[in-house]
Amino acid sequence: MAIKSFTPPQRTLMGPGPSDVSPRVLEALARPTIGHLDPAFVGMMDEMKQLLQYAFRTKNELTFPVSAPGSAGMETCFVNLLEPGDKVIVCQNGVFGGRMKENVERCGGTAVMVEDEWGKVVDPNKVEEALKANPDAKFLAFVHAETSTGVQSDAKTLVELAHQYDCLAIVDAVTSLGGTPVEVDAWGIDAIYSGTQKCLSAPPGLSPVSFSDRAAEVIKNRKTKVQSWFLDLSLVMGYWGPGAKRAYHHTAPINNLYGLHESLVILQEEGIENAWQRHAFHHQALKAGLEAMGLSLLVNEADRLPQLNAVVIPEGVDDAAVRGRLLQDFNLEIGAGLGTLAGKVWRIGLMGHACNANNVEYCLQSLDQVLGDMGAIEKGVAVAAAQTVLKSAA
Amino acid sequence: MAIKSFTPPQRTLMGPGPSDVSPRVLEALARPTIGHLDPAFVGMMDEMKQLLQYAFRTKNELTFPVSAPGSAGMETCFVNLLEPGDKVIVCQNGVFGGRMKENVERCGGTAVMVEDEWGKVVDPNKVEEALKANPDAKFLAFVHAETSTGVQSDAKTLVELAHQYDCLAIVDAVTSLGGTPVEVDAWGIDAIYSGTQKCLSAPPGLSPVSFSDRAAEVIKNRKTKVQSWFLDLSLVMGYWGPGAKRAYHHTAPINNLYGLHESLVILQEEGIENAWQRHAFHHQALKAGLEAMGLSLLVNEADRLPQLNAVVIPEGVDDAAVRGRLLQDFNLEIGAGLGTLAGKVWRIGLMGHACNANNVEYCLQSLDQVLGDMGAIEKGVAVAAAQTVLKSAA
Repeated sequence: MAIKSFTPPQRTLMGPGPSDVSPRVLEALARPTIGHLDPAFVGMMDEMKQLLQYAFRTKNELTFPVSAPGSAGMETCFVNLLEPGDKVIVCQNGVFGGRMKENVERCGGTAVMVEDEWGKVVDPNKVEEALKANPDAKFLAFVHAETSTGVQSDAKTLVELAHQYDCLAIVDAVTSLGGTPVEVDAWGIDAIYSGTQKCLSAPPGLSPVSFSDRAAEVIKNRKTKVQSWFLDLSLVMGYWGPGAKRAYHHTAPINNLYGLHESLVILQEEGIENAWQRHAFHHQALKAGLEAMGLSLLVNEADRLPQLNAVVIPEGVDDAAVRGRLLQDFNLEIGAGLGTLAGKVWRIGLMGHACNANNVEYCLQSLDQVLGDMGAIEKGVAVAAAQTVLKSAA
Repeated sequence: MAIKSFTPPQRTLMGPGPSDVSPRVLEALARPTIGHLDPAFVGMMDEMKQLLQYAFRTKNELTFPVSAPGSAGMETCFVNLLEPGDKVIVCQNGVFGGRMKENVERCGGTAVMVEDEWGKVVDPNKVEEALKANPDAKFLAFVHAETSTGVQSDAKTLVELAHQYDCLAIVDAVTSLGGTPVEVDAWGIDAIYSGTQKCLSAPPGLSPVSFSDRAAEVIKNRKTKVQSWFLDLSLVMGYWGPGAKRAYHHTAPINNLYGLHESLVILQEEGIENAWQRHAFHHQALKAGLEAMGLSLLVNEADRLPQLNAVVIPEGVDDAAVRGRLLQDFNLEIGAGLGTLAGKVWRIGLMGHACNANNVEYCLQSLDQVLGDMGAIEKGVAVAAAQTVLKSAA
């Protein structure tokens, strides 16, 4: 046998996540492990809650990071809120709406699907029809930022609709948090989950969540036990909860939490509005470059996520070959299409720490070379087009 | 607001876990994040499987780390193996057997409890009676190394009994793996879960699991969907499984996996039998010191876990005050008692990287001072008693 230590290559991560992690966050990960009941750690937990409240723009007491990746954050929302027999209106306009449906059904609930084309927003009119037609529905669930398509739906309007029809709103903000406005309190979101490996630029493995008082009330009044012991908030909150005694439930992922804490400190230093602006601005530069070389984006301009750009693969171009060469020759990772968009789009992320001018230029330069060599684009114009935008900031 | 970066204190972790993490592992955590579908990462995943097979002493194909702490590993075993209505014989001789019961019931199963006193082993006679009385039981579930008491049960005998009565054996090895023999293949264990923050000395956040072919067959023939989407092995194995296409299921906790990989490389370098011996040896030294100062261990000598020593708190001694002073004045963490043993025992861990002569001496010295100042022990003899044992190795 004799397996050696693993030394990963140094990539530039411009896919759908994980995104490049700041050296400050990597350094934080390597700080000495302490106990999950250590008073010093408990102090850090209090700060973590405040930092997540800042990122989510909420005063929700029930705000903390689930000890597992975003999918577990999603499951935390569904298993704690739903009881068997509950009806949920689930919007699907990409991969992750389908995952919500799976969650509903595995909780013994019924999912009423509102389907929209992949690459389009969730249509509020269809949602209202579904809410009208299903007065017994208890929840509306939708994806704010569809990581599989790069579309941003109108969360504010959808949450308003949910409340108008007496439903609670469950929102997937895995890719939006930190990259584009997410206003938990102002929009009245009842349950929200995110990930650390997108615009927060911490390593994957944790899932920030937040619940409104109304959602907390629903959880408190459950008639059945939560089907997951690990994710049961009535137990987890004995450790993380407001006024909790920090009673042992499971062992928290200490070092990963150091990393998330540091990434949130960085977000706070920059200011979240500035972070949103940075994402919007570099998206414009990337877009200018992509369009100059003749590539087009999948999503309508008004509905685009700045942090996730779904680029239509030109006719005749070998998807895997391009991504392979970018990775091998340029150490650059961009994402493949998922589901029905596999082979049809690339997903170029500009997330968190990775969202900067150097990366925009490097990505365009690399694509210029790889696609130019194939004769698939107009060569030598992309970087200049991006630079024009980038200079406009000065 | 303005929250600053978090700098944890440098502790010596001799509680029930997390244990001290090797500098090599901390350094590995800080290596650059790469994508979960990156070919370099996929190569690391193959090595991870081999390393875990080495640690578990198994050839099981279905061996991988769950992307969440030990409690999620436990849940992975139960939600994938059980279907509603299934009967499980659950042995409880501490906190963690109770957690197994919770898992069984939340899966819609029935738990038949075999109870033993906390601090005693699981009694094979009682288990056999229960198996006889419940011919419709499908599983026997027990804790190999009870982290709450420091007891090691006879896993080999219990698994044999399970098979004799046509049950599959589900085993909690959170605290045993890497510290004391765990022979998955030789003992015929069907499903096993562990943690990273005990004798493997990686940070918490992952849970190594392994399933026998027989267990894999049960999972394959399920009639109902697994209630957890996140932990559903039929999906997870599309990413981790043998011959898998490494299809995206959830985003793996990349940097945490770097850490576990490094800690398993260290285990392999030392040789697992040597690691077992190291734990047994330093336990003897610690024991000699504790006994010299007049303290006693909760558990019968034959049933003790070398890596987790439950020490009876002398009459009249303030539990919390002692642990508080150890932490504050000596940066030394030892564990409190859990459940019925709260206030009655301390739990002193000698786990993985933390299991060495320096720590044995440091712990005894610190206890000597704190308890000596209280007049609760015979002062000034513990370290010498331990050193006598430690020197015997030379």
